[in-house]
Amino acid sequence: MSERLVVIGGDAAGMSAASQARRLKGPGELEIVAFERGHFSSYSACGIPYWVGGDVAERGELIARSPEEHRARDIDLRTRTEVTEIDVPGQRVRARDLETGTEAWTGFDKLVIATGARPLRPPLPGIDAPGVHGVQTLDDGQALLDSLSGTPGRRAVVVGAGYIGVEMAEALLNRGYEVTVLTRGEQPMATLDPDMGRLVHRAMDGLGIRTVVSAPVTKILTGPDGRVRAVATDADEYPADVVVLGTGVVPETSLARAAGLPLGEYGGLLTDLAMRVRGHENIWAGGDCVEVLDLVSGRQRHVPLGTHANKHGQVIGANAGGGYATFPGVVGTAVSKVCDLEIARTGLRERDAREVGLRFVTVTVESTSRAGYYPGAAPMTVKMLAERRTGRLLGVQIVGREGAAKRVDIAAVALTAGMTVEGMTALDLGYAPPFSPVWDPVLVAARKAVAAVRAAE
Amino acid sequence: MSERLVVIGGDAAGMSAASQARRLKGPGELEIVAFERGHFSSYSACGIPYWVGGDVAERGELIARSPEEHRARDIDLRTRTEVTEIDVPGQRVRARDLETGTEAWTGFDKLVIATGARPLRPPLPGIDAPGVHGVQTLDDGQALLDSLSGTPGRRAVVVGAGYIGVEMAEALLNRGYEVTVLTRGEQPMATLDPDMGRLVHRAMDGLGIRTVVSAPVTKILTGPDGRVRAVATDADEYPADVVVLGTGVVPETSLARAAGLPLGEYGGLLTDLAMRVRGHENIWAGGDCVEVLDLVSGRQRHVPLGTHANKHGQVIGANAGGGYATFPGVVGTAVSKVCDLEIARTGLRERDAREVGLRFVTVTVESTSRAGYYPGAAPMTVKMLAERRTGRLLGVQIVGREGAAKRVDIAAVALTAGMTVEGMTALDLGYAPPFSPVWDPVLVAARKAVAAVRAAE
Repeated sequence: MSERLVVIGGDAAGMSAASQARRLKGPGELEIVAFERGHFSSYSACGIPYWVGGDVAERGELIARSPEEHRARDIDLRTRTEVTEIDVPGQRVRARDLETGTEAWTGFDKLVIATGARPLRPPLPGIDAPGVHGVQTLDDGQALLDSLSGTPGRRAVVVGAGYIGVEMAEALLNRGYEVTVLTRGEQPMATLDPDMGRLVHRAMDGLGIRTVVSAPVTKILTGPDGRVRAVATDADEYPADVVVLGTGVVPETSLARAAGLPLGEYGGLLTDLAMRVRGHENIWAGGDCVEVLDLVSGRQRHVPLGTHANKHGQVIGANAGGGYATFPGVVGTAVSKVCDLEIARTGLRERDAREVGLRFVTVTVESTSRAGYYPGAAPMTVKMLAERRTGRLLGVQIVGREGAAKRVDIAAVALTAGMTVEGMTALDLGYAPPFSPVWDPVLVAARKAVAAVRAAE
Repeated sequence: MSERLVVIGGDAAGMSAASQARRLKGPGELEIVAFERGHFSSYSACGIPYWVGGDVAERGELIARSPEEHRARDIDLRTRTEVTEIDVPGQRVRARDLETGTEAWTGFDKLVIATGARPLRPPLPGIDAPGVHGVQTLDDGQALLDSLSGTPGRRAVVVGAGYIGVEMAEALLNRGYEVTVLTRGEQPMATLDPDMGRLVHRAMDGLGIRTVVSAPVTKILTGPDGRVRAVATDADEYPADVVVLGTGVVPETSLARAAGLPLGEYGGLLTDLAMRVRGHENIWAGGDCVEVLDLVSGRQRHVPLGTHANKHGQVIGANAGGGYATFPGVVGTAVSKVCDLEIARTGLRERDAREVGLRFVTVTVESTSRAGYYPGAAPMTVKMLAERRTGRLLGVQIVGREGAAKRVDIAAVALTAGMTVEGMTALDLGYAPPFSPVWDPVLVAARKAVAAVRAAE
């Protein structure tokens, strides 16, 4: 007797789940129906800035698996079809064909909710004017690309200085725009502590990206043609031929909310370790629409990243396909770059640690990516937080050039393992002059943190 | 009442120990005398290939701290002075001034043995001919550099295809030589399994470095002027204007042996966790002259690497200076490169695992250093060993291009923490298209290893 698995959302989490379930159960055992309101499936939203910036030539390169490819694997993926209601007790979803407008109910034995996130669009005058772009979907990216012009001297304003904001700043710089980034924050990259954000700020200035901090946008100004012409803050006006919004995202959980499913503090679905929606035996959720456990702070957080969405999908697919897997949580690792500047973080910032009642020491060290005498040795700043008394590692932030960002993985694994900074000083990391100073920068920070923990006793 | 600390050996381990002890105790409390038979102190022997190859312009760049700088920190460093005897019960060492030939005894309250390693010079006919070079010390490197010539068409033969061998092959290639590497092994890089060594072999061929395997050298042939003219194996002769020996090193422990101090299977000094020579309260040893505990196999090994020597020095200096620190052991991490080929390993090879009675599965995956669509994404092969039943990670080997080698740190930390491959699949590693595919290559390997462990049950 065949069961039916219904998947809402055709991107990373949803289609990974569908694919993994299909690997475990053939079409005779499990029917899989997936609904996606857009045109595309399984694409790398994280790649959009590089496509807009020209590093990636073709939109198609960002698509890991097309709808046709999914269908060839016996997954009934219906694009341009939007789920409008989840009937939990009735075990069915209602979906609307966006081309024809017709709606129909589809029953499910098992359900996967992977509705992703939606961009925060601040309710500002002019926010919907032509020339103001989000970059959440491939369709958004295409619209932005179509609007770009090769005319010299054109100006772009990016609102928000998080990952998307700084990556879009690079993309627009690559397209020949004069770029201004406006952020309401004290420094760009609020996922770092302000002292590390200041390093990013200085480096962005050096790259020719004007970054204005403590500058919340009050208005989008339009010209006589109705198109955007400038972005206004309380203090100033910034002329703009194009505006890109990088103002963050929130979980897209309106369907889940209407269906009475449990949501957390950030509006994301709450799941158990097997990624089942809490209290529901046969409903799973994953990707940008869920909250995840932060293993360092013990708190639920919303961490919309493709890498987590893929892991969630694998776990959901394994469980929905009759196997077993869990997603224990995250430690908060993220890496990014702006031109040749690399930015990384994992674990807790100072404010995160304070918020959960931890007492800690912080140290900051300067080192280099390679042996100082080896060509291409680039400076790198590493900040480390460790718990007082126990010396447990709490977090690491890195700002540098080539070879800086992925060093954060050392700390990510150490955090997962609950290591102390003293334990870290003995780590047997790869050393050769082209790859590292004889003491890796992360070890230099750990040694200094050991001393700081002792001094604080 | 002032104590005297005597250090034998003025390179990484010895001078790190001296410097750390000096930080903890001033000259009024602790006198520090260090003996070094060469001209230099605290230099990066690992940097010699890059200096010979021209990436590093000046010998001085390899010197972290000169004898004068040590003396300015109240360390009585006596260069060109060779210790010829350790009198353990008498708590004194005899040293010879290599300039004047005079010998004298110096008493110690505490002793640090950091005599390093000595290159294995196979007892072959012609091995001492002019034109045959080791590259163990700065003096060796200088002699080799002085002998190089810019004449086109000159030929170099490197004997041995370990780290030093392949790094010297790159150096000589950079100097315009036609380079042949001869190894008695089945493949180059015997620190990898042969299947991974084969990838290195193929890549070296592609770089224009001829690599001949299963080719033990039988003789060095000299010309009428007595200089080297070729290297002979049983099968063939390889013309050579210069020969470099990369035939490995052994612990330099003749003094320690004569003094009756405990040596291990590889001829290295045996220490406790505080780096004290076993059974001796006031004698420490570190660097290339000691054996270390391999935390994965539980066996003692000889792992001559600058990064361990520096850690040993720190630990010894802390303890000799009245503080406390330990060196728990290594997991066997090493990274290297030949031109743009990157090579890394950590943990156990197949033969190591077998030797200690472990049963295991192996998997090998192909992935890329960045998202496949991002410019510069380079192929990378990752091999992973995991214990049967438990799924505990046992080892990782990586061969690839830019961005490959330092990924081994993820596995090095996971090995230290005793993680299983299943635990590794959930690791929250840094992801963004310029830095990694959405599943980091190490995670791809871990996922495949999980399946292999299950399949083997």
